[in-house]
Amino acid sequence: MMIKIISVGKLKQKAFVDLINDYLKRINHYLKCQEIVVSDEPEPVQISNKSLEQIKSKEASKIFKNINQNDFVIALIIESNIISSETLAKKIQQWLNTFSHDICFIIGGSNGLHESIYERANYHLSMSKMTFAHGLAKVMLCEQIYRALSILNNGKYHK
Amino acid sequence: MMIKIISVGKLKQKAFVDLINDYLKRINHYLKCQEIVVSDEPEPVQISNKSLEQIKSKEASKIFKNINQNDFVIALIIESNIISSETLAKKIQQWLNTFSHDICFIIGGSNGLHESIYERANYHLSMSKMTFAHGLAKVMLCEQIYRALSILNNGKYHK
Repeated sequence: MMIKIISVGKLKQKAFVDLINDYLKRINHYLKCQEIVVSDEPEPVQISNKSLEQIKSKEASKIFKNINQNDFVIALIIESNIISSETLAKKIQQWLNTFSHDICFIIGGSNGLHESIYERANYHLSMSKMTFAHGLAKVMLCEQIYRALSILNNGKYHK
Repeated sequence: MMIKIISVGKLKQKAFVDLINDYLKRINHYLKCQEIVVSDEPEPVQISNKSLEQIKSKEASKIFKNINQNDFVIALIIESNIISSETLAKKIQQWLNTFSHDICFIIGGSNGLHESIYERANYHLSMSKMTFAHGLAKVMLCEQIYRALSILNNGKYHK
């Protein structure tokens, strides 16, 4: 059993990459954690709703290849459940206790996630009502997973 | 009229500092922005409620020295108004239109802000119900201010 963090699009900004790598290393002290980055689709300059749908659908297919049938899937969706770090920790504990498969966090690219991912997801998580840059949102997610595991292990990180 | 971002405690992690400096530079393209960092108080290993109150009070005094009487003050408080990036942009527009003085965003250190800051504040803003590392929260705040100004100036950053 492990945590998978699946995201769309390779990050270019070094500071985001450094922070994510640091949190991933720290998460791995508690639980095996794998980062999976699927490539984003090239985006035309002028984008119609139809082509946006196609882009998101193609990105979703790549995401699905990395999810197993029994994985517990958490999709990051801005308009969904806004919970505290303590509640996320409790939920992760519950998911770890109840399911014997991997826990997958999925965070979309700049276009957001396709509806099929929302439908597959077992839980919808919102970190904020605010929109953050993709790289920053991924840093925030990694920090929250690390914080949750630290809370569950009585670490000193969270106070 | 300018934006002041007041925080407590110097950040050590280079990646946070780099990201903050980058957003500050971008904010300055739209509106003059000053970063003010007041020193945090040394924290004893064992901390009582009384000494925590004293620490926060001392930090608050240093913050107050950087606020003018007519400044419009926004305190970052986890249990307060959770709003979207678009709503923050509208509010900043309104504050800029209504007040001729500086807009001060205040973000606490690892101990949080003293009650006197909450009372002085004209608006309480929450970016999330989740607790984030101090440096990360400051990056998030700077990104949101930049995003808000970009929205107000029809920039391409927000979509």
